[in-house]
Amino acid sequence: MKLLITGGAGFVGARLARTLLARGTLAERKIERIVLADQFAPPADLLADARVTARTGALLGQCAALADEGFDGVFHLASAVSGECELDFDLGLRSNLDSTRALLDALRLAGKKPTFVFSSSVAVFGPDPAVPLPAVVADTTLPAPQTSYGTHKLMCEYLIADYTRKGYIDGRSARLMTVTVRPGKPNGAASSFFSGIIREPLAGVESVCPVAPEVSHPVSSPGRTVAGLIAVFEASREAFKGRLALNLPALNVTVGEMLAALEQVAGQAVRARVRFERDERIAGIVANWPGGASAARAAALGLQADDSFADIIRQYIDDCEKGPNAADALKGLAR
Amino acid sequence: MKLLITGGAGFVGARLARTLLARGTLAERKIERIVLADQFAPPADLLADARVTARTGALLGQCAALADEGFDGVFHLASAVSGECELDFDLGLRSNLDSTRALLDALRLAGKKPTFVFSSSVAVFGPDPAVPLPAVVADTTLPAPQTSYGTHKLMCEYLIADYTRKGYIDGRSARLMTVTVRPGKPNGAASSFFSGIIREPLAGVESVCPVAPEVSHPVSSPGRTVAGLIAVFEASREAFKGRLALNLPALNVTVGEMLAALEQVAGQAVRARVRFERDERIAGIVANWPGGASAARAAALGLQADDSFADIIRQYIDDCEKGPNAADALKGLAR
Repeated sequence: MKLLITGGAGFVGARLARTLLARGTLAERKIERIVLADQFAPPADLLADARVTARTGALLGQCAALADEGFDGVFHLASAVSGECELDFDLGLRSNLDSTRALLDALRLAGKKPTFVFSSSVAVFGPDPAVPLPAVVADTTLPAPQTSYGTHKLMCEYLIADYTRKGYIDGRSARLMTVTVRPGKPNGAASSFFSGIIREPLAGVESVCPVAPEVSHPVSSPGRTVAGLIAVFEASREAFKGRLALNLPALNVTVGEMLAALEQVAGQAVRARVRFERDERIAGIVANWPGGASAARAAALGLQADDSFADIIRQYIDDCEKGPNAADALKGLAR
Repeated sequence: MKLLITGGAGFVGARLARTLLARGTLAERKIERIVLADQFAPPADLLADARVTARTGALLGQCAALADEGFDGVFHLASAVSGECELDFDLGLRSNLDSTRALLDALRLAGKKPTFVFSSSVAVFGPDPAVPLPAVVADTTLPAPQTSYGTHKLMCEYLIADYTRKGYIDGRSARLMTVTVRPGKPNGAASSFFSGIIREPLAGVESVCPVAPEVSHPVSSPGRTVAGLIAVFEASREAFKGRLALNLPALNVTVGEMLAALEQVAGQAVRARVRFERDERIAGIVANWPGGASAARAAALGLQADDSFADIIRQYIDDCEKGPNAADALKGLAR
């Protein structure tokens, strides 16, 4: 089978590609080819696989050509992030709404009715004076996005449902939780600290937590997130039930619990590199986010959240140890 | 003030324009000019008013020019109807999604931050295996559109909320109920019979009702619908509360009650012109529609549903008597 991963050079996309290449099959079919469409070139290890083709450039300009490929399956992960969309309204519309629309139309014209997994987001939820935000948002909580990013994700969920109803694709929308621990640098997103308070102290760097220890948040490891995307792809139309998007499983955890897990896994000295210094701007944004999410429909597909935040930290450490930058990334870890 | 009504030559749009011209003011400001944008020319009585300008043509092609006008307020009613969108997927996307997007961007560029009332629809609701459809849908019922029409209306609600959040417009979305009694010919829409079973017998014509007398539906008279659009325009941002769309008030009434009201208002001979003959296709579509709607948020703005279906029929008869075709439209009514 021939697969397309948009955003295939990104953090989640590249991990998904690696996982699929290692499996060799998807939905019991052999993976012959994976096209990675992204504005950046994919990591070298992916390019080295003979089954991988990279298409580098803005997605919107690539959609017409992609229509000629005849994909059997698509993971549509490409997206401008929340902070970018708030700064540049047109960029958000173009990258997250128009590009999805163009991709759907290209697939409709190609006529192969591919299975289509869309990475939506927990950002579709938010408080609204008309509907108080529950402490834990469910699959069926009424969305009320508070950002352009969340708005476009939600609009695309409904657009994908309609293309599916008409038989043009077999679409499913999986709402991703905050994926942590992300490698690399802080990215300026308001949620960046959820990775930073683990990543920086492990690298021997001081980190500032801008919210109180009591703040709770729904998170997921990269591994569980990728497993969720694959399970949503492989679910039968019937098992999936209904046309609404589903929440991927979340570990609902407080900042205090995250840091306790860090101490448990990496020791007191690492934990001590995190200090609390309230940032009113970030704390205000985070106060509008759900403190947790449930995922009954994903559970019906056999998906579970990470067992503990300690497991999430161990996954990050394992990933670092396998990668080329282990010495730097784990400089703070006594071993 | 300068107003734009898209779909301003249509049934609801023309009535809204007449009502506004007769009032002379909106939100305590004098109405200097009303632009009616529609693919068809407006009725002659509207064109005869010096305050009215018609712009005839497809909305999508007109948006750029409309941006130059600097409107203080917009009623965006233009829309391809549900049946058309199901037959022509691209037409639906173009007329109901792309046109709204282009209009919003034109208004954003114009920079006047107009009050913007969008006519959404009760068609955003539908049954979903994940969420049973309640007998009466509320403002906060989780939408699950079953048509492209309902999908695009819902997407536009969220898009308008985001343009509003960013301060580009002051948007509000009002979900219209089935507006009845519509004058003219049956239009092939699945809901057409809700007007037909009243309109045809009053004109002395036999009418077939394709669903059982027990079928319930949320309806609104043209007069109350227009009053609702105006009240939603005039509500302060604060009174409106929150960013979600609201349901306009509905009279939830069964087909049997509609026909009893017809007999009460027009007599037994008129009622006898309606016979029941089940149409499986139409009955199947109608079974997916909510049987009623509530409108708590509209009630907070002072809006009420029609008092009775007899009142709705009397409004239709009054309208006919004022119009040029009274003799034909009311041929079946003994007077």
